[in-house]
Amino acid sequence: MTSTVVSSDRKQVVIGFDHRFVMIGERINPTGRKLLAEEMSRGDYSRVVADALAQVAAGAQMLDVNAGIPLADEPAILADCVRLVQDTVDVPLSIDSSVVAALESGLAVYKGKPLVNSVTGEEERLEAVLPLVKKYSGAVVAISNDETGVSEDPDIRFAVAKKIVERAADHGIPREDVVVDPLVMPVGAINAAGRGLIYLLRRLREELKVNTTCGASNFSFGLPNRRGLNAAFLPMMIGAGMTSAIMNPLHAEDIQAILGADVVMGNDPNCGRWIRKYREPAGEGAEAGARGRREGRRRAMA
Amino acid sequence: MTSTVVSSDRKQVVIGFDHRFVMIGERINPTGRKLLAEEMSRGDYSRVVADALAQVAAGAQMLDVNAGIPLADEPAILADCVRLVQDTVDVPLSIDSSVVAALESGLAVYKGKPLVNSVTGEEERLEAVLPLVKKYSGAVVAISNDETGVSEDPDIRFAVAKKIVERAADHGIPREDVVVDPLVMPVGAINAAGRGLIYLLRRLREELKVNTTCGASNFSFGLPNRRGLNAAFLPMMIGAGMTSAIMNPLHAEDIQAILGADVVMGNDPNCGRWIRKYREPAGEGAEAGARGRREGRRRAMA
Repeated sequence: MTSTVVSSDRKQVVIGFDHRFVMIGERINPTGRKLLAEEMSRGDYSRVVADALAQVAAGAQMLDVNAGIPLADEPAILADCVRLVQDTVDVPLSIDSSVVAALESGLAVYKGKPLVNSVTGEEERLEAVLPLVKKYSGAVVAISNDETGVSEDPDIRFAVAKKIVERAADHGIPREDVVVDPLVMPVGAINAAGRGLIYLLRRLREELKVNTTCGASNFSFGLPNRRGLNAAFLPMMIGAGMTSAIMNPLHAEDIQAILGADVVMGNDPNCGRWIRKYREPAGEGAEAGARGRREGRRRAMA
Repeated sequence: MTSTVVSSDRKQVVIGFDHRFVMIGERINPTGRKLLAEEMSRGDYSRVVADALAQVAAGAQMLDVNAGIPLADEPAILADCVRLVQDTVDVPLSIDSSVVAALESGLAVYKGKPLVNSVTGEEERLEAVLPLVKKYSGAVVAISNDETGVSEDPDIRFAVAKKIVERAADHGIPREDVVVDPLVMPVGAINAAGRGLIYLLRRLREELKVNTTCGASNFSFGLPNRRGLNAAFLPMMIGAGMTSAIMNPLHAEDIQAILGADVVMGNDPNCGRWIRKYREPAGEGAEAGARGRREGRRRAMA
């Protein structure tokens, strides 16, 4: 099965159908975080360091790093952040920008094999980003929209993904180094968004044979109890073939949903991670773990 | 798509790919409930009535009724319970016994089109239960094991299910009135149990085109934080094609997982049930709902 290997100078992570689901921490991103944006633009990266440490401690196997601040020197800030985060934690990074010059400056200082976030099916973007991905021997996130925008039709999104995979091959980038983002739309606005994603993820896995990622939290946008809905959404996407997500690893509900999905997929040998996480009466799963054990004892005695 | 229609004298429920997931309440069952068994065997059905009311109030669209008590007059008790539960609540019932005479006495007093729980692929059982299902115009749960026991190989379980569907057709019972139980095994013992089920559920849906049910809680047997694991397991099974489950509707985590899965499957039009359940600061989802709204407001103001 398809394996996407990314690395830092100290650690390797495999995204793949027969591997545990890869959580890519989304927090280092000034979009919608006014305070962080202001700090980053004046060179104060203390919150970036704190976010890096907290996300890895919470279980993120990779971190996304974005420095998209209006009017700031994004290439310089992104390079600073990539350097600093690599000095702080040992996980591989996803270098995230819509500005090609910023991607290049981040890639230039990166140690290891990064994920480049992202390319779309737009001609101009394809021909600007793919040569960079090849030059720096990275893997790339391929977002399945093009000049015509984001289609609600999953077959059109599949066709865009296929075009990107083919164009990447033209640039010498193998299929396993293209991680497709099938685009998660809010189900509150588009009722068929979830069902369409399940269908698309299966096609991406079975026909195009690529790994996948997404910005998961978008699904529940505008609805109450968003974390409860995400906790159902994530396992269903994993069951359909999704192999990574760019998400907030500080949400315990999401972590539980993903660890549970790893168990269901057979990617947690002997349920070892699940048992380690939830057996001890300490931390998030304590109460539930204790309850499970009591129940187990009752059953064993019955 | 395949629709299994069951009914009481007052209510109809459809199990099907394009319908909301059907929760069949499992509580009215003396197995492992010593007090209930003792009460039922001396004709005290107060707890049966309470369990019926509580499960329907919690959202069960159907109830399973089982009276399997060693040395008791199961046919008489099951008939009593079926009558009483139908007088108490208006949902359709699943009449549950391993004793053919008990199934018949329950069916004889049932008003509406019941689910008969269950037949297996064993010759003797097939030829005893299927004529009853036909005689009383019911639907039937088909458990995918036979004389050789329960196979760990999902292809063998598929073959058993196919044999039951074919034999049912010989008895004049159409495919849509056979609800296959693919058999949920504990993932703590069999690491591939979840992945095998996803594969089997897809084949049952796409090739055999049948509805499905299962005893979901068996999956997490022996593990800590069982409810957390069930909350990942259920949505993944629903995503793979499962259309009902025999379960405890009093577990709020399971209800949230199923309502969320209905949203993802597009079977909650305009997310209406999700919003009604979680928007109000009252009941189980209150805190999460309020949090969701606060977050929504923050975003709206950003």
